[in-house]
Amino acid sequence: MRALLAGFGRVGRTVAELLAERPRRPGLSALDVSVVAITTGSHGALANPDGLNLAGALAEIRARGGFTAAHPDFATLDTLAALRTLDLEVLVELSPLSVARRGEPAISHVREALRRRRHVVTANKGPLAWAYASLTKLAREQGCALLHEATVMDGAPVFNLVRRCLRGNVILAIDGVLNSTTNVVLGELERGASLPEALDAARRAGVVEADPSDDLDGWDAAAKIAVLANALMGGDLTPERVERESVRAVSPERMARASARGCRLKMVCEVFREGGTVGGRVAARELPAGDPFAAIDGTSSVIRLATDIVGTLVIAENSPDLRTTAYGVLSDLLEVAEGVRR
Amino acid sequence: MRALLAGFGRVGRTVAELLAERPRRPGLSALDVSVVAITTGSHGALANPDGLNLAGALAEIRARGGFTAAHPDFATLDTLAALRTLDLEVLVELSPLSVARRGEPAISHVREALRRRRHVVTANKGPLAWAYASLTKLAREQGCALLHEATVMDGAPVFNLVRRCLRGNVILAIDGVLNSTTNVVLGELERGASLPEALDAARRAGVVEADPSDDLDGWDAAAKIAVLANALMGGDLTPERVERESVRAVSPERMARASARGCRLKMVCEVFREGGTVGGRVAARELPAGDPFAAIDGTSSVIRLATDIVGTLVIAENSPDLRTTAYGVLSDLLEVAEGVRR
Repeated sequence: MRALLAGFGRVGRTVAELLAERPRRPGLSALDVSVVAITTGSHGALANPDGLNLAGALAEIRARGGFTAAHPDFATLDTLAALRTLDLEVLVELSPLSVARRGEPAISHVREALRRRRHVVTANKGPLAWAYASLTKLAREQGCALLHEATVMDGAPVFNLVRRCLRGNVILAIDGVLNSTTNVVLGELERGASLPEALDAARRAGVVEADPSDDLDGWDAAAKIAVLANALMGGDLTPERVERESVRAVSPERMARASARGCRLKMVCEVFREGGTVGGRVAARELPAGDPFAAIDGTSSVIRLATDIVGTLVIAENSPDLRTTAYGVLSDLLEVAEGVRR
Repeated sequence: MRALLAGFGRVGRTVAELLAERPRRPGLSALDVSVVAITTGSHGALANPDGLNLAGALAEIRARGGFTAAHPDFATLDTLAALRTLDLEVLVELSPLSVARRGEPAISHVREALRRRRHVVTANKGPLAWAYASLTKLAREQGCALLHEATVMDGAPVFNLVRRCLRGNVILAIDGVLNSTTNVVLGELERGASLPEALDAARRAGVVEADPSDDLDGWDAAAKIAVLANALMGGDLTPERVERESVRAVSPERMARASARGCRLKMVCEVFREGGTVGGRVAARELPAGDPFAAIDGTSSVIRLATDIVGTLVIAENSPDLRTTAYGVLSDLLEVAEGVRR
């Protein structure tokens, strides 16, 4: 299966690392993927119809910070051009989420890929958060997969779990602690740090984007809520229609009051049915010590699915790293390779 | 797909109820299963090559406590005879676990089914706990499925989750709180009850077998540990080789000391690698309040999987009921219907 990696930041590089490790990992050896091109926003591109040397590409970007004309596979190519000119079966969309551009340019990449009957695996939430209905309709018409395990809870099984292991269940409601940045920040505020100090700690944990506003003000959480609502509960949400509370609204006084009651504050994401429609909300919630969400610290996260047959399931991941997220992408590639279309 | 239900106790009846509900559950409507026979230990049997009326069978057993010659589909048939004489594709083994008989007669049922190239779905842990290697070898040789989602954590995805959603990961270690009876008993002891009082409470919660010893003395947990070790970590364990501590060993004094330290006692099941082999243990463990296992109360349960790529995942189910367990059986039937062979 020939793949285009669109984006080669931290997640993209870790995907490449895991693909390069296949000979040493029996479970992944079945993953017959040849990366024929890598495109980036501003760090150049590589293309080779016989498959790129991933170890070489990783060494190149580490040494030079980008791809240059010195590389034999260097190409002047953006993602759309690659989709239009190269022979490939799957787009792996790994560009960063843009809230300001409402999911673009990833939406255009995904749409172009589907129009050309390429399968899509995306770690970027934008296409599912802002264009779910039109893209899934297009994927269905074209007989293509549109998979997105890595958009929520990194590589922990959520979407593939529901599709593969909870068939026949109706998802009644979802909640969870799903944003690492605000969770690290709340932990620091709890220990008495100021907001700037807490942000520094989150930066050291590697969970802060160049502009931290999307995380702090709940946009990342709102995008995840929209994806969950649309993909698992038949909703028609966009992040703008999710009720948001910013972690900046958590004052030291509010934190102290919660602690005095033996409780912890967590930013809790919710997807719920109300009057025939599916709604979403992210807000600071005070949780007693015994609550399973109260124990979720640092970069860990948790999701709870209320279903009509199996009852309530909770899935948590402990201190994931980039390999966890990259695994979400690989598990979708394994699904595509097996012929899943959803 | 023609199925034989071997066993028609609480789980078997709930499986039949969910199958009878298919017309009202779009997600299950794809489950094309026709139950051609039901066998029981001492309550008679029914058989009809055109498929039994499940609602009628449920009404019959509720009204009379068993099947009698008055029923038009009444048959004089035990499970082995049914496997030898009836035309069917899948054995659904729902008889109770017998520790005293080391998994029999369920092991013989499963072996006979596989010999005759019938797929097997079992909620009975015995065959996997005492005869894992020989039965999985036979299933492989015969091209048959041998699935057992309901043997651990009721219907919550564990085995199907690992096979379907964690491909390529090596499971490094497993632990969990997996026995409801002892968990309810510990909760009552914590509230100051005596062991007989605690057992009565567990009985009222519907989680005590006729002979409570298998649960109290850790045999049920040991059987689950053996299944997990064998199916997910390449182990070769039987319940006798699992280290067991009985909940009877938890004295009021020990409970009081844990409470005084702000901790809770839980019977924790573990599967671990040690010196090239896979071992297992169930023992009372003192857990601090923030531990995710400490919050597991009553009939809820939790499992934690340590993996080499995705990291550590925790799956919990909250207060499952019989439908949760029955769903585990149905999800395996959905897998068989899709052609999974494992």
